[in-house]
Amino acid sequence: MKRSEVAAAQRRATDLLDAHGIMLTPEERANVEVAGFGLGNLERQGLELVTYINTDRYCAKELVLFPGQTCPEHLHPPVGGEPGKMETFRCRHGVVYLYVEGENDGTIQAEVPEGSEAYYTVFHEIELHPGQQYTIPPGTKHWFQAGENGAIVSEFSTTSRDEFDIFTDPNVQRMPAIVED
Amino acid sequence: MKRSEVAAAQRRATDLLDAHGIMLTPEERANVEVAGFGLGNLERQGLELVTYINTDRYCAKELVLFPGQTCPEHLHPPVGGEPGKMETFRCRHGVVYLYVEGENDGTIQAEVPEGSEAYYTVFHEIELHPGQQYTIPPGTKHWFQAGENGAIVSEFSTTSRDEFDIFTDPNVQRMPAIVED
Repeated sequence: MKRSEVAAAQRRATDLLDAHGIMLTPEERANVEVAGFGLGNLERQGLELVTYINTDRYCAKELVLFPGQTCPEHLHPPVGGEPGKMETFRCRHGVVYLYVEGENDGTIQAEVPEGSEAYYTVFHEIELHPGQQYTIPPGTKHWFQAGENGAIVSEFSTTSRDEFDIFTDPNVQRMPAIVED
Repeated sequence: MKRSEVAAAQRRATDLLDAHGIMLTPEERANVEVAGFGLGNLERQGLELVTYINTDRYCAKELVLFPGQTCPEHLHPPVGGEPGKMETFRCRHGVVYLYVEGENDGTIQAEVPEGSEAYYTVFHEIELHPGQQYTIPPGTKHWFQAGENGAIVSEFSTTSRDEFDIFTDPNVQRMPAIVED
């Protein structure tokens, strides 16, 4: 991803947080994480993150999704003898369609990103509106997509070790390099 | 505390959350925890809490303080071989004066609750405005008070086991009974 694209996405994420009264420090604003997962289409498959705290015991983040933006399917494996990351997604703004392992009646409300259909394999749908939340057990495949107005989601979890996440799509790079313009 | 007093405090807490766009489910609204600590003066020493999630690995709550309301001094001891609760307070609205063990220059901005002076013993001041946060290490005595507009504080932490908290004031009851009117 180009540095200019990162900066534009950071600005767009902070605009959405500002619009919903979620205050950040100047340092947090400057360091919003823009995750394009190395897939080259941030609008479609991507996520913006503000990590408030990540200790060896717990973690809290604010996740921002642009309209229709999708966090690709992944799971959190056990690390260092501990069970995998357990996380609670609490919707603060917008609508989020969350998919986990489990039953599905044959339809979903989200649109699987075109060209990546093979890498979306779980379809048990949870629809989250502001104030609603869902806790994902360790080791459970999941993916999520914002509705048409984008979304802000608070994530409360055990320690975040993103580098160990297992994505269904082998093309995903969780920590790709930023390229100068 | 009387049931009517609990209901009034719940209403006041949800009004403040509503005013700042923090959405709750109907069940969360009905179950806002009102902690008067058995001290008989909720306005002065008390706290309102919404527990979003409390698992054996992490916890997240929204704390609401009325103007000048104070959470009495306490610490979180080790429980069951684990270090004590570690918690991050992130101010979302208003101003919070947080006091922990450490240096103090002889003045503080909060007012120690009258009649309870003996039970406030740590005065290292941290002033938190919206978007600012502070992480309290396990086993550290601390107390906090809202400024004149009240405050909303997100708490991210390890597992919450309130019944083990150690308060400096021996009169505190963390879980007093509710009395019918």
